[in-house]
Amino acid sequence: MPYVMRPGEHVVGIDIGGTNILATVIDHELRIVARCKKKSRSKKGSDSTEDRIVKAVQEALTEAGVTKIKGIGAGAPGPLDPVKGIIFDTPNLAWKRFPLAKMLSESFGVPAAVDNDVNLGTYGEWYFGKIRECRYVVGIFPGTGIGGGFIIDGKLYYGFSGSACEIGHMTVEVNGPFCGCGKRGCLEAVASRIAIAEQIAALAARYDAPFIYDNCGTDLNEIRSTIIAKAIESGEKKVEAVVRKAAYYVGIAVGNLVNILSPDAIVLGGGLVEAMQELYVEEVTRGMDDHALPYMRKNVRLVTARLGDDAVAMGAGLHILDKLDS
Amino acid sequence: MPYVMRPGEHVVGIDIGGTNILATVIDHELRIVARCKKKSRSKKGSDSTEDRIVKAVQEALTEAGVTKIKGIGAGAPGPLDPVKGIIFDTPNLAWKRFPLAKMLSESFGVPAAVDNDVNLGTYGEWYFGKIRECRYVVGIFPGTGIGGGFIIDGKLYYGFSGSACEIGHMTVEVNGPFCGCGKRGCLEAVASRIAIAEQIAALAARYDAPFIYDNCGTDLNEIRSTIIAKAIESGEKKVEAVVRKAAYYVGIAVGNLVNILSPDAIVLGGGLVEAMQELYVEEVTRGMDDHALPYMRKNVRLVTARLGDDAVAMGAGLHILDKLDS
Repeated sequence: MPYVMRPGEHVVGIDIGGTNILATVIDHELRIVARCKKKSRSKKGSDSTEDRIVKAVQEALTEAGVTKIKGIGAGAPGPLDPVKGIIFDTPNLAWKRFPLAKMLSESFGVPAAVDNDVNLGTYGEWYFGKIRECRYVVGIFPGTGIGGGFIIDGKLYYGFSGSACEIGHMTVEVNGPFCGCGKRGCLEAVASRIAIAEQIAALAARYDAPFIYDNCGTDLNEIRSTIIAKAIESGEKKVEAVVRKAAYYVGIAVGNLVNILSPDAIVLGGGLVEAMQELYVEEVTRGMDDHALPYMRKNVRLVTARLGDDAVAMGAGLHILDKLDS
Repeated sequence: MPYVMRPGEHVVGIDIGGTNILATVIDHELRIVARCKKKSRSKKGSDSTEDRIVKAVQEALTEAGVTKIKGIGAGAPGPLDPVKGIIFDTPNLAWKRFPLAKMLSESFGVPAAVDNDVNLGTYGEWYFGKIRECRYVVGIFPGTGIGGGFIIDGKLYYGFSGSACEIGHMTVEVNGPFCGCGKRGCLEAVASRIAIAEQIAALAARYDAPFIYDNCGTDLNEIRSTIIAKAIESGEKKVEAVVRKAAYYVGIAVGNLVNILSPDAIVLGGGLVEAMQELYVEEVTRGMDDHALPYMRKNVRLVTARLGDDAVAMGAGLHILDKLDS
């Protein structure tokens, strides 16, 4: 059983992303009572990411007027060791075998636990979404990468490596485009925000997507989910086709997961989904229906995330409560 | 805890395939003490498959000199309901919603349990193979179809539908060849014995595989695993290339499973693997290495089945022992 906080007790939940750090203070009713958001790296590079995480937590605690906490949970991009709390390798943060849990624990003098960000996002959504009665829940969060999480009977599934559910690296196109992992044809290589931006940038370069061109030029990093959504709203059909195709690929992967994991619920979250929910869910559903076995697809719920930007931090708060007991 | 048989006690384990029924009698030391094999359907169609199953069990019991048993376990091709023991639909056996567990239980007056044949084969291999200490075990049995099973901490994983791990219907080639399930590009559609036989028959038709042509003509159903193995041994390079490509596809699927389920062991079984073990494992390993994330692939054991034709029947025997207790 997880630790149940009494009135006046708090935990900290942190979401450490490649771009932003979100530190939250969570009270005994599992409400976020304070937030602090910082860029993961300073522009001048004068302080490290770890310094910025500590500062974000301190500022959130000050805002909440809380001086004592029960523990800290943190979500970070993998690969990582959730048992030892070590981040192996996070290209966007320049960490190599960084002992994040130890650092947090020593900085604040309380227990700390670390897990994959998408695992914790899935956990948060399972807990606070409308799928808590579901026994087998898959979470997919397409963004710069495509992460996944899997919950069996209310517990995250880790497998032998501790990193199960690397959905983004499921091969969906044999000999397809190269992926950041070095393999070819991974879901990420055809459906992540970068894969989408790359195709949209090419459209912009040919002036086939004037809204994109006028707002972002042809720079992949500028072509964010919200801009893509606006381009589609403004009527850029080729941009829409690119997103639809990518979302359909996610649907193919979801179909495969239905055939293998046989979940009763699938949660879709992340920036792309939030920015263009209707269109995205439509294509994922189509891809899933085309690729899942009908008797396994039957009665499977496909839902979108409800916690938005707070999903990982909330999941991290729940995660440390689970650990405090065990 | 499963039921532990005392000396003199026995259970029956049955493997019901599309072609053959194998009934076995298993003693308290988990040894098969008698076997009876029958064709699943009589040529004249005078008796039903269910009659033939009952007769096979009776003959095996007579051979063993056993008159009283503790229970019966049976494996059959899916889809089926392992809880109610109902076979939904088995094209090769012409069963529709057939209550197999009930029929067996009533025929012999003992408890009976039914499960997917590949689940039970995986379970048997986990129990009797050299991977019993492994916590996350995937079984793949490529044959006429391609079935899979998944064991977590010594227990078969069923998921929401009761039919998890339908590995054969993982999409590995978007818009690939049609599959028996009605979808396209499933692993089965590119790597089952039928998919292989189809390509080899075409080689034979062009006289590009004279050994095959001379032995089987161009009839897909005649091109069995053992003949394919002999053709390769006799030097038919194009036949070998077809099998290698199919086995590589199985390796791609295994790579995907490593990335999703993160197993510590994978068991390869079934007719194709048994007939040409070395070549097959070589290609599966290559496909897996090309498609699994290196840190998840690390220390994963790929082993071949040890129980051969007895795997499903042995797993069925273990399965009823598990049920007798619960």
